Amino acid sequence: MSVPPLTELREAVWLANQTIVRAGLVTLAFGNASGVDRAAGLIVIKPSGVPYDELRPEDLVAVALDDGRVVAGELRPSSDTPTHLALYRRYREIGGVVHTHSTAAVAWAQAGRALPALGTTHADHFHGPVPVTRPMREPEVAGEYEAATGDVIVETLDGARLSAAEMPAILVAAHGPFTWGPDSGAAADNAIALETVAAMASQTIALEPGVGPIPDYLLERHFRRKHGPDAYYGQKRR
Amino acid sequence: MSVPPLTELREAVWLANQTIVRAGLVTLAFGNASGVDRAAGLIVIKPSGVPYDELRPEDLVAVALDDGRVVAGELRPSSDTPTHLALYRRYREIGGVVHTHSTAAVAWAQAGRALPALGTTHADHFHGPVPVTRPMREPEVAGEYEAATGDVIVETLDGARLSAAEMPAILVAAHGPFTWGPDSGAAADNAIALETVAAMASQTIALEPGVGPIPDYLLERHFRRKHGPDAYYGQKRR
Amino acid sequence: MSVPPLTELREAVWLANQTIVRAGLVTLAFGNASGVDRAAGLIVIKPSGVPYDELRPEDLVAVALDDGRVVAGELRPSSDTPTHLALYRRYREIGGVVHTHSTAAVAWAQAGRALPALGTTHADHFHGPVPVTRPMREPEVAGEYEAATGDVIVETLDGARLSAAEMPAILVAAHGPFTWGPDSGAAADNAIALETVAAMASQTIALEPGVGPIPDYLLERHFRRKHGPDAYYGQKRR
Amino acid sequence: MSVPPLTELREAVWLANQTIVRAGLVTLAFGNASGVDRAAGLIVIKPSGVPYDELRPEDLVAVALDDGRVVAGELRPSSDTPTHLALYRRYREIGGVVHTHSTAAVAWAQAGRALPALGTTHADHFHGPVPVTRPMREPEVAGEYEAATGDVIVETLDGARLSAAEMPAILVAAHGPFTWGPDSGAAADNAIALETVAAMASQTIALEPGVGPIPDYLLERHFRRKHGPDAYYGQKRR
Repeated sequence: MSVPPLTELREAVWLANQTIVRAGLVTLAFGNASGVDRAAGLIVIKPSGVPYDELRPEDLVAVALDDGRVVAGELRPSSDTPTHLALYRRYREIGGVVHTHSTAAVAWAQAGRALPALGTTHADHFHGPVPVTRPMREPEVAGEYEAATGDVIVETLDGARLSAAEMPAILVAAHGPFTWGPDSGAAADNAIALETVAAMASQTIALEPGVGPIPDYLLERHFRRKHGPDAYYGQKRR
Repeated sequence: MSVPPLTELREAVWLANQTIVRAGLVTLAFGNASGVDRAAGLIVIKPSGVPYDELRPEDLVAVALDDGRVVAGELRPSSDTPTHLALYRRYREIGGVVHTHSTAAVAWAQAGRALPALGTTHADHFHGPVPVTRPMREPEVAGEYEAATGDVIVETLDGARLSAAEMPAILVAAHGPFTWGPDSGAAADNAIALETVAAMASQTIALEPGVGPIPDYLLERHFRRKHGPDAYYGQKRR
Repeated sequence: MSVPPLTELREAVWLANQTIVRAGLVTLAFGNASGVDRAAGLIVIKPSGVPYDELRPEDLVAVALDDGRVVAGELRPSSDTPTHLALYRRYREIGGVVHTHSTAAVAWAQAGRALPALGTTHADHFHGPVPVTRPMREPEVAGEYEAATGDVIVETLDGARLSAAEMPAILVAAHGPFTWGPDSGAAADNAIALETVAAMASQTIALEPGVGPIPDYLLERHFRRKHGPDAYYGQKRR
Repeated sequence: MSVPPLTELREAVWLANQTIVRAGLVTLAFGNASGVDRAAGLIVIKPSGVPYDELRPEDLVAVALDDGRVVAGELRPSSDTPTHLALYRRYREIGGVVHTHSTAAVAWAQAGRALPALGTTHADHFHGPVPVTRPMREPEVAGEYEAATGDVIVETLDGARLSAAEMPAILVAAHGPFTWGPDSGAAADNAIALETVAAMASQTIALEPGVGPIPDYLLERHFRRKHGPDAYYGQKRR
């Protein structure tokens, strides 16, 4: 396989990694962002365990989409690479994946609870409750654990009949969030949105434990304001 | 309609938008601030979905107060513009409006609870509990949703016989806060005060679930210390 | 009364005002710090309602300790000046007073609960639970409210037989904390310590609602490690 | 005893002290980091009560590992020095110790509860629940208190049959966390990780009070991913 120039993709993925740091989603070296070049058949991902403030774009590692071998870069890729690969393989429409251990989202993942859609901030980003996976089983954890994590994410979205566009986020039980989007920047923005709505939901439930989700018509209105053919939020040609 | 020079108003509204960012009330591109020029019959408002750190004063959009058409600016105005317009039309005394998705205030909005006046920080800014609107109905949400949001805010304040000066804030149920004031800077300050007292109230209730509001005489004293003819807080000519 | 050069005291009080801002205890223009010059019979205090980022040392106002008239400075003193004065008059050993509306401490004040000594961080600064005043009565609030606030603080400390050195902080019910110390810098540090232990206590109680205070022998050891003749914390001549 | 050049160790311990400040674990002058030079038989530790922003590497104090006398430095060592010494003496494999009063970890210590392993962030750093010591008894507190604190930490780890490598952290009841590691930087990182997982655990329990710990197979996988001979996280020679 010939590797194309990776400068642009590395810059974009580097920026997504910095975005989650600046947004306060990262403690120590937890978390990672990646982006895909489908024509070249590879992804670019953060190296494992490198401090974010030392990370340079050229440190990002390129990994083959099909078999996961390193095709460019001097460092070891993130240990979560197989999870990223599983998502890219299953969802052709996504261009970036982000994983964090952001506190509020992790709390929901550790509680084993799906994050309910309690308001319009949620509905602006996620088309319904953000699912939580089932707990991973011993053989999954003992074997190819990170690949199995990807499989369990896909199983969960499939079980809920959710597309990656409708639901650009998931909570892996007892672990934390993965988010995705058309590119790594959008995936980072979804990680930020998820942490924010997770914190809002925790505080809402503390005030009103029995609160229910917003009605479907409000969820639809807000999600469609920002996503799909009828979107009217943001800048388009007037 | 001839459009007057907007430099000064754009600077003020730009600054109000930056103020809510610096105060930590903004995640991603959520939220918007506007200001009005009543003589010219227009408002100036943040463009939709533009990142705050790229926003320049000249990007702010001018919109006619009467019919909402864009009268100056290259970009699309905030999708919440009709809500702002409804407030400016109904309350002649306000000069600025701010909308945020700040976390603690959203928690109260999502809980569907009015924010009680539990202390003097609250009373310094809001003359009684900050009301929460009723949930919006399906036809309101499916139709001219943002204009209907403005109508529901007005309906709620009218129902509680509150003036815009006495109560410069509201919680839109399942959505979040709108605040206002004599100008966009004051509206931004009220957004900051609201987030602060919302956080204080949540923490107070966690400690003492049955806590009641402060007595009227304390509410009056603090509100009148800062507002109206007997105010003695801040700098006036001595 | 001849006013001495105030440069040094103004610098110190200005710094104490900046310290509470940098520590995150201040929202908008809430809060104020003061310091006393007992030989000159005056205090220096923050002017009312001036934004902290515009505050210069020369803006600080000098007020006579005996009758509260302004003796130097162009601006109106903090509206809380009579509370500060009441504390300086009653406690000859204090040199600085700080008032904030910091969130966690306000939550305890709004809950009307004394802040229990749940750990050594508390004991390092406060010799027992930080008291909360009784609610202020209507005549007190309607009359010379800020002076009455000072009187209620003194009444509360007297009722608990606490000296200002043993207990350099109080929670005014439904309002917020006042702290003090040998100088304005120490008062600011006590405001920071109070906010920290208030947040710790709230989180502790959320985990373990029935938790009791630490034993007296641990309280004594930590308080005496830092205060009084047997202190061995910090730098002294070895 | 001849004292070797301490420049390198002082720089490392100074950096560890700065790391816990930058991570938000420090209020006022609480907390301290130290590192050991076993060949020279000494530790280097923060001086007592010196503000972190004034601290220079040359201010750090060298103390003999065997008898705790100061062997280099002009200032008094941290009052917690005997606790650090007790840990270095008992655990030959540790090279750095950190003590903080970080809020979320203190809340667990004040609640007197061990911090359960509720997710993979915890398991990445701590091999099981982080123990809490028993309350310290009056003679321990009245006597050589700081040395007794070290003894109680050791007693607790011994009682749980935990090595310092498996469990690089403890909560001293009613006090706060101590952490350690191969060097002072690793000890600081463990202090950061501990505060993060403490906050996550508090938020998880608020959502789901009855939540149980993660299964052993998940704990093992994550701990071994990062620690010991089979570690595959981070950068090694490929």
